[in-house]
Amino acid sequence: MRLRLTPRDTTIIDLLVQAGNALVTGADLLEAVIMSGPEDRADRLVKVRDAEHASDDIVHATMRKLNSTFVTPFDREDIYALASALDDVMDNMEAAADMVVLANPSRLPDGVETQLSVLREQAAITAAALPGLHTMKGLEEYWVEINRLENDADEVYRDMLAELFSGAYEPLELLKVREVIDALEDAADAFELVSHHVETIAVKES
Amino acid sequence: MRLRLTPRDTTIIDLLVQAGNALVTGADLLEAVIMSGPEDRADRLVKVRDAEHASDDIVHATMRKLNSTFVTPFDREDIYALASALDDVMDNMEAAADMVVLANPSRLPDGVETQLSVLREQAAITAAALPGLHTMKGLEEYWVEINRLENDADEVYRDMLAELFSGAYEPLELLKVREVIDALEDAADAFELVSHHVETIAVKES
Amino acid sequence: MRLRLTPRDTTIIDLLVQAGNALVTGADLLEAVIMSGPEDRADRLVKVRDAEHASDDIVHATMRKLNSTFVTPFDREDIYALASALDDVMDNMEAAADMVVLANPSRLPDGVETQLSVLREQAAITAAALPGLHTMKGLEEYWVEINRLENDADEVYRDMLAELFSGAYEPLELLKVREVIDALEDAADAFELVSHHVETIAVKES
Repeated sequence: MRLRLTPRDTTIIDLLVQAGNALVTGADLLEAVIMSGPEDRADRLVKVRDAEHASDDIVHATMRKLNSTFVTPFDREDIYALASALDDVMDNMEAAADMVVLANPSRLPDGVETQLSVLREQAAITAAALPGLHTMKGLEEYWVEINRLENDADEVYRDMLAELFSGAYEPLELLKVREVIDALEDAADAFELVSHHVETIAVKES
Repeated sequence: MRLRLTPRDTTIIDLLVQAGNALVTGADLLEAVIMSGPEDRADRLVKVRDAEHASDDIVHATMRKLNSTFVTPFDREDIYALASALDDVMDNMEAAADMVVLANPSRLPDGVETQLSVLREQAAITAAALPGLHTMKGLEEYWVEINRLENDADEVYRDMLAELFSGAYEPLELLKVREVIDALEDAADAFELVSHHVETIAVKES
Repeated sequence: MRLRLTPRDTTIIDLLVQAGNALVTGADLLEAVIMSGPEDRADRLVKVRDAEHASDDIVHATMRKLNSTFVTPFDREDIYALASALDDVMDNMEAAADMVVLANPSRLPDGVETQLSVLREQAAITAAALPGLHTMKGLEEYWVEINRLENDADEVYRDMLAELFSGAYEPLELLKVREVIDALEDAADAFELVSHHVETIAVKES
């Protein structure tokens, strides 16, 4: 445990918490895009883009705060990496929403619903865990659970891949579906990367 | 602002500047490979490989200098990361040149020209910005501009993906074109990663 | 050269060595999965999974030791990164074994045998090099050699890509083979990333 000679400015942690909360909104909006029919997708995609811009603003505010703060609550580069990783999740969710519009597959396998519910759960527990950076409490449970959810995501993703390669899809349709499920898998992985950065901070603080 | 008790050896910054300049050459040579017909590509690819080897030599010289220098201008690991990121851009440009020869698509979408001009512009402003590591001046404009260019690259990349998935391409041809545009997109992303490492150094120095 | 004021606890290095040894087993088991016929693959895949779980256990033991040790042999975050990178190699090898079962290509190009022998060699020299973390001896030869092997892997991978794009494969079969050779290429890259983390440690210690 490090000795603290100065009180920590916790504004930066509050900003990270805000970035986590934005991911809950983002995951809901992503689900709305993907589960809607092609006719509504373009409109709903606009909301995902708005959420992504809001997330960008939070990350930039975090960076500005970081640049103007002498004593940061954790190592400057770890905060930077965590804020970037939170932004990467949002970027990945936007990319998945984007891809379903761009590739426009005729139908999506059922596993996509599981991928979306994993993302919503990962968003919820990430948002719930980040305030724990104030006290460094409850964080291990969080990253263990993110890892468990990521394993669930992997399993459903693998089942869908086997289905895609089974011969039941035409090559072009296979490629379209693949884009969407890959983008969703990347988002689940990005949540895990966030948890790794939280773990790095926790390891240093312990 | 850190106090400097010893003068900084700036040879390492000069080497990073050289690595940046090599990317200007690399982007020009990459464009020459891609925009030429299949019959000239193999010859021009040799020049990209030479540029990549020259870049490797600069990175290795940077690492050797880093190993033999007691007081480095910035944190040792940040210099290492930046030198590696500069080398990654060159690797990505070589991979793109390579891929157009390997996959040999019948024709490339017009957006590829935009991708190439973004890469040349990213190379130019990266090369122009790196000497700013001596004074830490003008770097924020650089990374904002790199990010803007990367967004341009993303947009044209997305348009080409939509075109590929529209049904206008046979699956095999789609896959071939995809390889080339993905490799070019990766190179644009790699420039952004360079700018992130410059930003990390600037954040620590501020 | 840093002055050491306290004796270093070398248990952590021993755990990293164990993680390296596990990769030798992993590479052998991966080869057994891929080179066997489809009928035996599922059974052999179980052994790769077991090896991956054993690797996870070693990494977790390393992390626990890291959390409970005051004076670590190297910077805490570099040990963390190295342990994670060793685990990533195993994850990539498991993913390759998994993918040959999921995608189930009709036949694999001959280059796959070269990919597998590169992986086995990379595993062998990684396992042989990691005990050098005790003395910091012989590490440069190791990372130079890993890089050379990775270049061999790249070359055979590129030749296979050219073959895949030559028109000799149906699109679905191309995609199946692609999955397997990409996963093997990723594993070779992951070995190189391990060597970079070893190099980072060596740079700081020098």
